[in-house]
Amino acid sequence: MNKPETFSAIKWERERLTLLDQRKLPHQIVYCHYDSANMVADAIKTMVVRGAPAIGIAAAYAVVLAARTAYQDAGKEWRRAIETELAQLQAARPTAVNLQWAIAKMQTHFDAINDDDPTPLLLALAQRIHQDDITANHAMGRLGASLIEPASQVVTHCNAGALATGGYGTALGVVRTAYHDGLLDNVFVAETRPWLQGARLTCWELQQDDIPVSLLIDSAVASQMQVGNIQWLIVGADRISANADVANKIGTYAHAICAKHHGVKVMVVAPTSTIDLTVVAGANIPIEHRPTCEITQFNATQIAPAGIVSINPAFDITPAALIDVLVTEKAIVAQPNHQKMLALFG
Amino acid sequence: MNKPETFSAIKWERERLTLLDQRKLPHQIVYCHYDSANMVADAIKTMVVRGAPAIGIAAAYAVVLAARTAYQDAGKEWRRAIETELAQLQAARPTAVNLQWAIAKMQTHFDAINDDDPTPLLLALAQRIHQDDITANHAMGRLGASLIEPASQVVTHCNAGALATGGYGTALGVVRTAYHDGLLDNVFVAETRPWLQGARLTCWELQQDDIPVSLLIDSAVASQMQVGNIQWLIVGADRISANADVANKIGTYAHAICAKHHGVKVMVVAPTSTIDLTVVAGANIPIEHRPTCEITQFNATQIAPAGIVSINPAFDITPAALIDVLVTEKAIVAQPNHQKMLALFG
Repeated sequence: MNKPETFSAIKWERERLTLLDQRKLPHQIVYCHYDSANMVADAIKTMVVRGAPAIGIAAAYAVVLAARTAYQDAGKEWRRAIETELAQLQAARPTAVNLQWAIAKMQTHFDAINDDDPTPLLLALAQRIHQDDITANHAMGRLGASLIEPASQVVTHCNAGALATGGYGTALGVVRTAYHDGLLDNVFVAETRPWLQGARLTCWELQQDDIPVSLLIDSAVASQMQVGNIQWLIVGADRISANADVANKIGTYAHAICAKHHGVKVMVVAPTSTIDLTVVAGANIPIEHRPTCEITQFNATQIAPAGIVSINPAFDITPAALIDVLVTEKAIVAQPNHQKMLALFG
Repeated sequence: MNKPETFSAIKWERERLTLLDQRKLPHQIVYCHYDSANMVADAIKTMVVRGAPAIGIAAAYAVVLAARTAYQDAGKEWRRAIETELAQLQAARPTAVNLQWAIAKMQTHFDAINDDDPTPLLLALAQRIHQDDITANHAMGRLGASLIEPASQVVTHCNAGALATGGYGTALGVVRTAYHDGLLDNVFVAETRPWLQGARLTCWELQQDDIPVSLLIDSAVASQMQVGNIQWLIVGADRISANADVANKIGTYAHAICAKHHGVKVMVVAPTSTIDLTVVAGANIPIEHRPTCEITQFNATQIAPAGIVSINPAFDITPAALIDVLVTEKAIVAQPNHQKMLALFG
């Protein structure tokens, strides 16, 4: 396997979508193949693929699959034939806006397609979304790394890496570029309960690139900021509201509060496709609650006593006021706010 | 089994020490029996028994076991014969001061024992330490609950309950009293990685008492404070320095920072035996680092990739400035500081 830096967990091969099953990493490298949008929706729901940009890209390919099948079955009526399937795809996970962004982007081209097979044109579009994401990641990596001083140590949460994107990564794109530029001494990785994206995915990605990692439980990040020499908290985003509040993996908010308490700067790295100007503020972003067995069990082994109530929000909202800098592929936005979000699209 | 409120995880029965194995809770109720101080030291090290006051009580009984065996073997030379064993016992875990406090308390009575078998007198002393702890817990429960308004919701971290003490609990003693007084609507329990004392032990204890619980991952506490209606963070302590900094289970510090950020008040509940006036400030409290497999594995199943470096401090330091109130068996101390700590012993 290629190094994570250069690989993608999402591939279009042999006229179907292939996803690296992220539930099985880092211990098993298993690829799953998809011929229908419904199957991809299920893969998104069950987290075979996760990470906001990666979900968007997978959904774009799912639109290709849906249209191809519908054209075979219904001919030029394919647009109407896929409506239900696309609605289900869009509902697979509610928080990451890239899912609906990618589907909407594909849909804007539907009208331009004549009565021929829509597959080639839609596939080209999905591949462009995929490639644009990788390009954006490299641009963000360069911009974000420009803010990092030599001999820095940083903390990251969850996995905003090659696995979560088209390739290279958002937060981990900055980490990769900064490390290759000789600026980073160490990356503290928060394990990211309950799904352990940090321990399983980010550690694996950075290990493949020989980037020095120290794994911590989530609640040890604060004491590491207290005793250690940490300059930045660097995270991705699942949706950014018009006022620059950030929905990201549960735990981001706690880390951001602790960062502010210790004078550690907070960098959010996300493509502009993650910014949702239709949502006024973070409080309006829908937060997915996932099955509580993610907390009460581990690998089907019960942890908590049977019958315990638990609450499992998959994301939290970090208010813009706690964010020092938002790095997008277009620009670095210091002290992000509503006006600056509008300006990004101006 | 009796309800946790009325039971003790530590018993002196049939002339030996019996401990409820906390590694196996809540799924198995297993009692282990101990005839020697070395075995008890091992039980403390491997967390058969855990929680600062409980460790102290177990150590007091271990001194009885050591002296009894030494008297059988060495007669009136028993005091010298147990020196090495007590030193090893004291070194079993470094952070909770109750361990050395209890051993020292037992030792102060060594000189008063004549050349007879020291067992009866030392056993009576250990049982008094045990009983005094339970009495102190009830006193703290009453004092702490007096601060709680009706219809409150609180967060607790780790397990500072009957299992962690002689019985009833410190932080959970306050929770129990407040709930029985009709003041508490709900208790949010942080799961407390990596050892999951919250998910396994606190949920179990509170469930037995029919106290309503919501289990959260540690890093969801902040967002619950943001969206919810939480009045207090209530935790125990493993050692309190002379300036009132608090060493407690890793994660306490992060919760305290987030509590301050949201105007949630912070209550630390601990007997005066947890206050160590010989340690000037929290930075001087020794922090135990436990095996990293607690993070990289779950039940011997690997989570993180092999070879990943991880850091596993078992405790962190919450500075006095973040603590609104320290509840001891002697008094409520608002805004604890050095002068007020001295006054407690005045």
